Amino acid sequence: MVQQYFLRLPSYPRGFHLITSEVLAAVPALPDTGVMHVFIQHTSAGLSLNENADPSVRVDFERIFNKLVPENQPYYTHTLEGSDDMPSHVKSSLVGASVSIPITRGRLNLGTWQGIYLCEFRNRGGSRKLVITIYS
Amino acid sequence: MVQQYFLRLPSYPRGFHLITSEVLAAVPALPDTGVMHVFIQHTSAGLSLNENADPSVRVDFERIFNKLVPENQPYYTHTLEGSDDMPSHVKSSLVGASVSIPITRGRLNLGTWQGIYLCEFRNRGGSRKLVITIYS
Amino acid sequence: MVQQYFLRLPSYPRGFHLITSEVLAAVPALPDTGVMHVFIQHTSAGLSLNENADPSVRVDFERIFNKLVPENQPYYTHTLEGSDDMPSHVKSSLVGASVSIPITRGRLNLGTWQGIYLCEFRNRGGSRKLVITIYS
Repeated sequence: MVQQYFLRLPSYPRGFHLITSEVLAAVPALPDTGVMHVFIQHTSAGLSLNENADPSVRVDFERIFNKLVPENQPYYTHTLEGSDDMPSHVKSSLVGASVSIPITRGRLNLGTWQGIYLCEFRNRGGSRKLVITIYS
Repeated sequence: MVQQYFLRLPSYPRGFHLITSEVLAAVPALPDTGVMHVFIQHTSAGLSLNENADPSVRVDFERIFNKLVPENQPYYTHTLEGSDDMPSHVKSSLVGASVSIPITRGRLNLGTWQGIYLCEFRNRGGSRKLVITIYS
Repeated sequence: MVQQYFLRLPSYPRGFHLITSEVLAAVPALPDTGVMHVFIQHTSAGLSLNENADPSVRVDFERIFNKLVPENQPYYTHTLEGSDDMPSHVKSSLVGASVSIPITRGRLNLGTWQGIYLCEFRNRGGSRKLVITIYS
């Protein structure tokens, strides 16, 4: 059985943001056993699972990703949409456009420290759209 | 309900290539609601979702991935299969071997700018095999 | 139809480790056609698919990931849990917390050279917990 829900997130600033509660608020009671697939319909943002407690982790994520894929490199050819655009595409492919999370006894079976991250790679990404599909 | 299809891609040169239409041509009419899982059976290529319009994005992807995981580093030990081999394995794990895309009202529910990329990391990767599984 | 299984791995040293046989030993006979979703409930380790034959590939993975996300950078703010902690979170998001593998004719339909990697990014990560969900 497959159920599908749609979630439009408000605009977030560039950086990594915990959205677990927003995702859960967008779906009704979960089935007993299954998988939740959360998908972002964009190519300059991504989704990931990571540490849900200490905000300094998310600060360092932003810094490390900026080192991994720096802006304004002389060999970039796709530059018309701003210096944050091409790096945001690559960062999006590095984290991926979706996460899949097991559902067990009617709850997301995340580890103790896992939360869903919206990875906003643009300076002004605007509102982002998610498609949530649950199979059970 | 699960349906599965197999697709053998022709050889692509090293780089990032849009294959959305090839994937869609390999499957019959999609179910109303579900998920399409596209999987590549190789360890020196990968699949990703990214920008489907401007080819300069794909040019820069190739350049940036070559900076991320450069060839011919003195600390590499796995070198017998060529200088492009070990970097291709790591790049494959960075983008991943599969993408999962929601299906809504009988269509892939990709964002406006999203397409499926074959990420070919070998100089001569040859034909690549995909397994497409649809659950609905 | 969805079935779910739980696997607690023994402690592995920091590095990349083949766990395909451990995962298969944790589940009963596979269905004819479907997908196996393998999920790790941690934020400082990850799962990936990569080369299953030559151990030198896994040696180089460890070296390359340490270059990608080095320890002890002056701009890190999340440092209380040790120099390997913050890099391990980022590495986890780079490879991801799950792999999804097609099942065909009752077997994991991996390519010839593909195996499941536990990516242990902590010096002492301890036992890691996996959730395996099979849909068919």
